[in-house]
Amino acid sequence: MAKALIIGAGGVAGVTVHKCVQNSEVFEEICIASRTKQKCDDLKAKLDGQGCKISTAQVDANNVAELVALINEFQPDIVINLALPYQDLTIMDACLETKTHYLDTANYEPEDTAKFEYKWQWEYREKFEKAGITAILGSGFDPGVTGVFSAYAQKHYFDEINYIDILDCNAGDHGYPFATNFNPEINIREVSANGSYWENGDWVETAPMEIKKAYDFPEVGPKDMYLLHHEELESLALNIKGIKRIRFFMTFGESYLTHLKCLENVGMTSIEPIMYEGKEIIPLQFLKAVLPDPASLGPRTKGKTNIGCIYRGKKDGKDVNYYVYNVCDHEACYAEVGSQAVSYTTGVPAMIGAMLVVNGEWNKPGVHNVEELNPDPFMDALNTWGLPWVEDFNPTLVSE
Amino acid sequence: MAKALIIGAGGVAGVTVHKCVQNSEVFEEICIASRTKQKCDDLKAKLDGQGCKISTAQVDANNVAELVALINEFQPDIVINLALPYQDLTIMDACLETKTHYLDTANYEPEDTAKFEYKWQWEYREKFEKAGITAILGSGFDPGVTGVFSAYAQKHYFDEINYIDILDCNAGDHGYPFATNFNPEINIREVSANGSYWENGDWVETAPMEIKKAYDFPEVGPKDMYLLHHEELESLALNIKGIKRIRFFMTFGESYLTHLKCLENVGMTSIEPIMYEGKEIIPLQFLKAVLPDPASLGPRTKGKTNIGCIYRGKKDGKDVNYYVYNVCDHEACYAEVGSQAVSYTTGVPAMIGAMLVVNGEWNKPGVHNVEELNPDPFMDALNTWGLPWVEDFNPTLVSE
Repeated sequence: MAKALIIGAGGVAGVTVHKCVQNSEVFEEICIASRTKQKCDDLKAKLDGQGCKISTAQVDANNVAELVALINEFQPDIVINLALPYQDLTIMDACLETKTHYLDTANYEPEDTAKFEYKWQWEYREKFEKAGITAILGSGFDPGVTGVFSAYAQKHYFDEINYIDILDCNAGDHGYPFATNFNPEINIREVSANGSYWENGDWVETAPMEIKKAYDFPEVGPKDMYLLHHEELESLALNIKGIKRIRFFMTFGESYLTHLKCLENVGMTSIEPIMYEGKEIIPLQFLKAVLPDPASLGPRTKGKTNIGCIYRGKKDGKDVNYYVYNVCDHEACYAEVGSQAVSYTTGVPAMIGAMLVVNGEWNKPGVHNVEELNPDPFMDALNTWGLPWVEDFNPTLVSE
Repeated sequence: MAKALIIGAGGVAGVTVHKCVQNSEVFEEICIASRTKQKCDDLKAKLDGQGCKISTAQVDANNVAELVALINEFQPDIVINLALPYQDLTIMDACLETKTHYLDTANYEPEDTAKFEYKWQWEYREKFEKAGITAILGSGFDPGVTGVFSAYAQKHYFDEINYIDILDCNAGDHGYPFATNFNPEINIREVSANGSYWENGDWVETAPMEIKKAYDFPEVGPKDMYLLHHEELESLALNIKGIKRIRFFMTFGESYLTHLKCLENVGMTSIEPIMYEGKEIIPLQFLKAVLPDPASLGPRTKGKTNIGCIYRGKKDGKDVNYYVYNVCDHEACYAEVGSQAVSYTTGVPAMIGAMLVVNGEWNKPGVHNVEELNPDPFMDALNTWGLPWVEDFNPTLVSE
């Protein structure tokens, strides 16, 4: 029986809270903390009495002293960090000071550079090891389940994995000509950044959306997908044996991309303020105010996501192709936890990772990416907790 | 030798002022008046001493008493109205009260309905006739030159004109992915309105941009053009003998339309205010602030306009096809008068129409559309004052 402190109260946190409440055999008590306590109270009001005990707190995740005080008061076994990526290091510092396990779903990035790299968090390895506590990095879906899939493939089906393609398909339709599934600012920044993939020991950089492939996704159908940089490429390139190339693809509709391009062209995605009636306004912030609130998409999104990995390598000298994926239905997710599949697929693995740390299976002092740990109990838990996976040893490959 | 009061100081007024200054044999003195006197002073500063005498004034064109006072003070022979279409009636009232000739380039529309109709101005016919003064409606290019072309065709080449297609092509390139040539609010409203054309005594309404045709414009090349409603259809349907159908087409680039559609889709063209940081902001107004200022396009626009009319009818029992058009070069216009061709093609005919009223050729008490008057001196003046026209008796027709 464990206590978890969940920091954050957005869409993903809502899912993780639901799942902890469902899993009250493991999570006896949770505390939901965020800058806006009202959001935590709203979540508590929805779920109180349905499973574990819930408390709430106000906390500024940029402030180590505040975090330490909250941890000392609540005495959690683990801190589940679902706050902003800018806040990973302050939360890790607070965990170190209080000797509390740590887990997150997205790697640290400095607020001003938008660089996705693990180096800042990997520098905490020795400190966590010496403190005898575990930090699990990136336990969402991608990163997260994609790393667990990779460890599972390596453990059971391959002597060496030479090629990995991670395919993230969201075929959800919210009925708006254009809207973003999460904060438009972060969404638009991701899409307009250069792409990159890892090949033969080096990064290969591409122009934004330069590489486009068609893929016929099981249970979803054919979609266009684009090569993006994604953070798990960095850790998988180190942790998977024999790897020659890893790529990450995400689907975007033609219409989504056209709208984005037009908005960019006219200057509506700019973060340079303009003067409007004597006041500085940032066009992207104004656009965000005009677009539908991402939280409003949940009840109206139909369709499915399909996220998975295709592996190519050798076992006993023979070629092996292996595709493992999860299909998630937006409406079913919303019916179950009040969030659509994009939040669901991230929030469920956060609960699972935390469960494995507190029940001892993933309790290994230090700082770890998920693929460094035993994938088997995580894979079992995915089936139990709402993200069942499908295996295919004869998949369609991504075209070269 | 005459005096003209020019109301307005925007792009078109700038051209008309330049042309009056060039034509100081007719225009001995002009007064430029607008709400913002500084704009008038700027125009005066550019042109002072180059031709006619120039004075400036501040005036609110919505205010009949102010207009009357200004007219009484300056004692013009004609008022050239280049203000907003909402202000046509107040300026006509002031002309009636002071018995001064009147000319405009766009018909009155109530500010709240965006209805383009002549009826409000036609109701002044008897009053102007009784006062012994002339009002010329729509003496720009379209309406304006398109009406003069029609009167000229009827007078010289046809017994009856059965079909008119008015083709307005702007092949100017300002180098921006998206910008509007004049006030984005009016531009966007025009494009998103239903289209209509006149056929067999009735209006046929179309969805916005429903009818698209390709046409290979002389000196410009092939362009896509779209059927729009345009105000001269209403008067030409009445004034041209034997008419069965009149249509108006305007060219728009694929990219322009895509950008417009996307902006519309996300709500950026809406005139419903949204709350932004505690303040009401109209998205279209904010978009206008983000887009390039139309006035800034002049120095960077390259390419040509081609505006003209294709007539089909009978003369002495034989079929006649006749195309008459003007080609105007954006850079040449800018070099001559500091405005690109869209303003130039409207501002030059305003000066010509005013010249014909004050020299007596178009002095005919009442309220008239241009095609009701003798086209010959106007056609001569077009060649003299920068808008030479080309005739083609074997033109490519618009596809049915």
